[in-house]
Amino acid sequence: MVVMSKTVMILAHPSIEKSIGNKIISDNFSKEKNTEVRHLDQLYPDFNIDVKAEQEALLNAETIIFQFPLFWYNVPAILKHWIDTVFEYGFAFGLESTLNNKNILVSFTIGSPNKHYSDEVIEKICFPLKGLTQYCNLNYIGEIFCNDINGYTEEAKNNAINIANKHSQKLIELI
Amino acid sequence: MVVMSKTVMILAHPSIEKSIGNKIISDNFSKEKNTEVRHLDQLYPDFNIDVKAEQEALLNAETIIFQFPLFWYNVPAILKHWIDTVFEYGFAFGLESTLNNKNILVSFTIGSPNKHYSDEVIEKICFPLKGLTQYCNLNYIGEIFCNDINGYTEEAKNNAINIANKHSQKLIELI
Repeated sequence: MVVMSKTVMILAHPSIEKSIGNKIISDNFSKEKNTEVRHLDQLYPDFNIDVKAEQEALLNAETIIFQFPLFWYNVPAILKHWIDTVFEYGFAFGLESTLNNKNILVSFTIGSPNKHYSDEVIEKICFPLKGLTQYCNLNYIGEIFCNDINGYTEEAKNNAINIANKHSQKLIELI
Repeated sequence: MVVMSKTVMILAHPSIEKSIGNKIISDNFSKEKNTEVRHLDQLYPDFNIDVKAEQEALLNAETIIFQFPLFWYNVPAILKHWIDTVFEYGFAFGLESTLNNKNILVSFTIGSPNKHYSDEVIEKICFPLKGLTQYCNLNYIGEIFCNDINGYTEEAKNNAINIANKHSQKLIELI
């Protein structure tokens, strides 16, 4: 029996119905084989995370994708809450790290243009997530991100749709 | 009439009753004149932040301190949630930034020793908060932090108490 490796996407977006980028990226991803999308805001609208269920989902996956819109150079609050509660001592680190060698891929969208996001800025933005993966002996595969994901005008929105579709393709090729 | 400038501490700590550092620092701070401590976890145990009340508290202050234990090279989730909800368009940035020129001081405690926290690492850790203040035309006064704040042993705990008291003094001198 061949067991296909599974990829779980931890999606954080407080209003996915209004989303352009994260909606396209997570919808396309969910159509691939052996994938699971866990939309934190939908699962836990009151921030009351089911830690055991989340840990179980991670144990069943070989690759974990953090998918989110960048808010204030950082992850949305619910993703931070998920990290703070799910990455417990004894589960994610400590005597036994049950997550050893699983892969982490960071995938995010940015509303504003690329010119404000030099390599150095992106490195700083990703530093906490990279640090988390190193501390827990996970493999940090890398990050992918796209800019100009906003719907300020119809033209901007159409442009964002194209960019998000390209991002989505790139993501699917990586898994 | 002389109006003394007010300093508000936005404190994030999910279990302040067990805290060593953040408890000492916030207790000492609260004894100073013209100060206010807003303990987010106590005010909003369900993460349901009263945005208007928080904005009002900021408007009444000249200096804002973010006080927290560092979790995964980042702020605790509730502080991120506070930022995501309180720093709204039209309030903190956009046509009218009502927070213009208020001061921001970042103050945090770290459980582990100093050797893992080079200047470069601290700069990366503070980058999102610094970015926030720049975007909203606030004055980033700087950051102060202390290491070894843990109670793993009685000796470690006593050491942490001393360190936190020194941190606390330094903070009070800065405001």
